[in-house]
Amino acid sequence: VNVAVVGGGSWGSAFAALLAEDRHDVSLVCRDPEQARTIAETGHNPRYLRELDLSAVRAVSLADADLADAELLAIAVPSASFRGIVDGLPAGDAPVLSLVKGLDPESGGRLSRVVRDRPVAVLSGPNHAEEIAAGLPAAAVIASDDEALATRLQHAIFSPRFRVYVNTDLVGVELCAAAKNVIALGAGAVDGLGMGDNGKAAVMTRGLAEMARLGDAAGARPETFSGLAGMGDLMVTCWSRHSRNRRAGELIARGASPEEARAEIAMAVEGLTTAPILRDLGRSLGTDLPITEAVCSVLEGAEPSEAVAGLMSRAPTGE
Amino acid sequence: VNVAVVGGGSWGSAFAALLAEDRHDVSLVCRDPEQARTIAETGHNPRYLRELDLSAVRAVSLADADLADAELLAIAVPSASFRGIVDGLPAGDAPVLSLVKGLDPESGGRLSRVVRDRPVAVLSGPNHAEEIAAGLPAAAVIASDDEALATRLQHAIFSPRFRVYVNTDLVGVELCAAAKNVIALGAGAVDGLGMGDNGKAAVMTRGLAEMARLGDAAGARPETFSGLAGMGDLMVTCWSRHSRNRRAGELIARGASPEEARAEIAMAVEGLTTAPILRDLGRSLGTDLPITEAVCSVLEGAEPSEAVAGLMSRAPTGE
Repeated sequence: VNVAVVGGGSWGSAFAALLAEDRHDVSLVCRDPEQARTIAETGHNPRYLRELDLSAVRAVSLADADLADAELLAIAVPSASFRGIVDGLPAGDAPVLSLVKGLDPESGGRLSRVVRDRPVAVLSGPNHAEEIAAGLPAAAVIASDDEALATRLQHAIFSPRFRVYVNTDLVGVELCAAAKNVIALGAGAVDGLGMGDNGKAAVMTRGLAEMARLGDAAGARPETFSGLAGMGDLMVTCWSRHSRNRRAGELIARGASPEEARAEIAMAVEGLTTAPILRDLGRSLGTDLPITEAVCSVLEGAEPSEAVAGLMSRAPTGE
Repeated sequence: VNVAVVGGGSWGSAFAALLAEDRHDVSLVCRDPEQARTIAETGHNPRYLRELDLSAVRAVSLADADLADAELLAIAVPSASFRGIVDGLPAGDAPVLSLVKGLDPESGGRLSRVVRDRPVAVLSGPNHAEEIAAGLPAAAVIASDDEALATRLQHAIFSPRFRVYVNTDLVGVELCAAAKNVIALGAGAVDGLGMGDNGKAAVMTRGLAEMARLGDAAGARPETFSGLAGMGDLMVTCWSRHSRNRRAGELIARGASPEEARAEIAMAVEGLTTAPILRDLGRSLGTDLPITEAVCSVLEGAEPSEAVAGLMSRAPTGE
């Protein structure tokens, strides 16, 4: 399959190399022409995953790319840039596969809804780019309202080291992908406050419960939240040393401002963008999201230890 | 409340100290009289959590304990010793609260079913004793067929640093507590083989899915598996540096025998006891438990890397 991966960040680069290894014809489309030129010349991304061999991938700039030729458009840009990329695509009916984990800041809704004139699917799961680039095994889900499309993409992408499962709950998979980064900011804050693994597991479990409540209000299926896109991705995002969102929460709990945390991490930290959008979505659906609210309050200047104390002092209930 | 905590291991000791801090009248009943004597004399457990202050707890030997006086009997012994302790209790109607995470080797079934003549409840969740002993916050569930009993125990045990939720799905909570240790052996093996956090999250997520399938066949509720006793406890058991079961899986994947792993850890490793019992339970209920089967095959001598390859090469499916 002729695949264009749009976005030369770490996940776009690792995903492009993964597909090229499986004998697809892959271009990596970079928004920065200088970056595209360096990858084409050296076979390596100058900014992210510098060890990764990209020599089997054709690097081109977005301005020069002939996206009308692609049979599949995989989009791997920050959530705030997703709408601009989609609006700039040439006419055509090749499907869009979103690799993006966030919400659309303009509409406050799911990113796949921004794609109007093409079939659309979403790939998500516990997939830290650093490990995929290193050749380690992983598993993911592909979700679409169009199950035949999801199954076709599953078979195109499946390999012995990248197991792909089909999930027809597009709403649930997209909400999981967006919300897990916000919960990871909270889990990172628990790390930063030195509150221990029991407390972190409690925040994550109650965090997954609030994700599932939001999903329920939005029409998602509960099983999705215990699957790879939900629990699976939440786990690596909250525990792995590769996780930027967990790290940002830790830095902020130790006194950094959100801007300082962003600057130190020097890659997109989607949870910081998504948190207020998710809070508004929860409020508009009438869903109680205590951890998301607590994360937003800290991002707006509240003391992290007070936000945690507020969560711990809620009245005892059923689970 | 007059509480007898039976079992002087790390969780029994930490739980006794937690209750004593909340002004309950607590005895810690040790099977080893020498250990009881040392705790009574020094205020510290000579074997586990040596820093923990047990001076507010009355340590007695099992032979000397007057268990007929207790208003609550909390049992914190290894699963293989649970039946012996329960069968030796004097007549009475004080409830039993099980803190044990495993299955009954004699019947192959849930531990609470061993308790015949008294009300019974189970406490479970992400509760590493080391952290509770250090004063860090945590959350847990109490499950019982008798919701009034569970609610009464919730209010007796709840404190600002130990949040207790009620769950009426006793079957699900007990199966979670037993099976999570087996999945943690598998997750530890992924660590031992250097397969990365993505792969570990995939094993844990599919592990939780097989736990929930078993629960479904046994009459449990699916929500329990995404709650504190399921996902919550699974996470700390698979990720925390305090976890003995994770550590045992790591050692075995690196070439140790199960006996060598047990000897190195020098505390009960419940997953090693539970794995074959759980496999038999799955087979008797006609439930496919691929990760449990793979763990058992490694405990019986198969190569860990081949067991993992077998899991990764299963056919692509829906999630």
